[in-house]
Amino acid sequence: MTLLVIGTVALDTVSTPFGKIEEGLGGSATHFAVSASYFTPVHLVAVVGEDFPQKHLDFLSDRKINLEGIQKVIGKTFRWTGHYEYDLNNAQTLKTELNVLEAFDPQIPSACENLDFLFLANIDPDLQRKVIEKIKKRPRLIACDTMNFWIEGKRESLLQTLRLVDAVTINEGEARLLAEESNLLRASRIIQVMGPKTVVIKRGEYGALLFHAGQIFSAPGLPLEDIKDPTGAGDSFAGGFMGFLARSGNLSLNGFKQAMIFGSVMASFNVEAFSCDRLRNLRQEEISERYRIFRDLAHFDHP
Amino acid sequence: MTLLVIGTVALDTVSTPFGKIEEGLGGSATHFAVSASYFTPVHLVAVVGEDFPQKHLDFLSDRKINLEGIQKVIGKTFRWTGHYEYDLNNAQTLKTELNVLEAFDPQIPSACENLDFLFLANIDPDLQRKVIEKIKKRPRLIACDTMNFWIEGKRESLLQTLRLVDAVTINEGEARLLAEESNLLRASRIIQVMGPKTVVIKRGEYGALLFHAGQIFSAPGLPLEDIKDPTGAGDSFAGGFMGFLARSGNLSLNGFKQAMIFGSVMASFNVEAFSCDRLRNLRQEEISERYRIFRDLAHFDHP
Repeated sequence: MTLLVIGTVALDTVSTPFGKIEEGLGGSATHFAVSASYFTPVHLVAVVGEDFPQKHLDFLSDRKINLEGIQKVIGKTFRWTGHYEYDLNNAQTLKTELNVLEAFDPQIPSACENLDFLFLANIDPDLQRKVIEKIKKRPRLIACDTMNFWIEGKRESLLQTLRLVDAVTINEGEARLLAEESNLLRASRIIQVMGPKTVVIKRGEYGALLFHAGQIFSAPGLPLEDIKDPTGAGDSFAGGFMGFLARSGNLSLNGFKQAMIFGSVMASFNVEAFSCDRLRNLRQEEISERYRIFRDLAHFDHP
Repeated sequence: MTLLVIGTVALDTVSTPFGKIEEGLGGSATHFAVSASYFTPVHLVAVVGEDFPQKHLDFLSDRKINLEGIQKVIGKTFRWTGHYEYDLNNAQTLKTELNVLEAFDPQIPSACENLDFLFLANIDPDLQRKVIEKIKKRPRLIACDTMNFWIEGKRESLLQTLRLVDAVTINEGEARLLAEESNLLRASRIIQVMGPKTVVIKRGEYGALLFHAGQIFSAPGLPLEDIKDPTGAGDSFAGGFMGFLARSGNLSLNGFKQAMIFGSVMASFNVEAFSCDRLRNLRQEEISERYRIFRDLAHFDHP
């Protein structure tokens, strides 16, 4: 089924204790789309500047990502500069240069008027809402992501967006900030009252929690020996999650649980290299094999 | 099968954002023994002072815990005073009064000469080793716990103890400290080289990881609405873990996985009240029901 993502396409400069990349391909919509492309056709809506390297667009095209919704405009591409210490759960933002993002007016490709799945990756909640309003027929599932910057700086707009979505993916600390409640179980219920009936709480290396249909599901974090760069892990997670839901069309609790694991699988690959390099040439067998590893990691017998 | 624990029996004064208890029943061996008593007969080896309330000994006896190994000596009982903020994963120690613990010379009850399972709860590694040396026939499984105080203050002695044990239960941060390695997967391998072939890493509300026989298992943390006091959660975990292993006698990977879940079940009850109050009158059906809740929390279908 058709999946569309709107979010940022960026040039990221990132340093971790394990290396550094200068102006690598990044952005919330990029990581999402590359991850989701392993499951279903993806349409990408975003803006880049004149300086955006053609090789990155070629890579996205090669992954069969539809780029009709990409606008290339006068100005410089959005840039993010960040740093991680050994505690890879916390990014330090060193610099954010919005550039062409400041005047971005997202356009929906004509092929997407009958959209089934919509993901509003991390971007200004005004833009997230604009996309919902521009789509003629309501998709089967609308999900969004956000971050502390919008929770603190544009709370009212974010709350308006949340009222319109079915699901939200959000970091643990940001869920607490949004709900103004430290207990995660209570925080998830408060967020559900804000709009999204399905709440996915991302916990970095500790995995992710799903609150859906009165049930809780815990996707484990896979202990990895070599983590190079956690940037985009949450977006890769969302890409696997939404990509699998769009492929299966199964919105039951079981379908959502499987989507949580495919999200975790894609995030676990993403952190193994800088940018989205680990997801450039992943084989379907590698994805299936890691799904089995998650099963061995999480399952136990009856006593 | 026979299970013996050596560790501390204490009077704890604890405050959390949800309440306070003055001189409540505490200590590593207490929390362990009470939890394990739901699975198998337990022998408790510890020391208390003249001031130790008889009602606490009566409660332990009522739980069918064998107290032959408890020494009541002249002086005051070991006391710990601690505080937690909303981040319940981190205890602040306000005061530690060793008292009768300073001259403790553990004695093994005569009924325990053919011991099957031995747990060395958190206490001076010299004392842990003394117990191993006093036992005539090597038990089927020896496990120990420890903490940053001994890792930093008595490293050499702790390493000697670790060489003698089959399994260790240890907090995440303490595993990194002990192994001098921030990556948990590598840290667990380094600890395995120190002696224990089975490494259990406790992660508070995020659950626990088992490294055993070349495999990894992740026990989820159960999101709880009302957490009153995390004191003793790790010891209750170890009690459910060792108690179940001693009951089943099943030391296969599957047996260890089930033990991880029973440990998690008992820890999840323990944090719902101060001291070990939630574990005073637990029904077997409550334990079985929570085991099923963990199953629903962790299991997912094949895609």
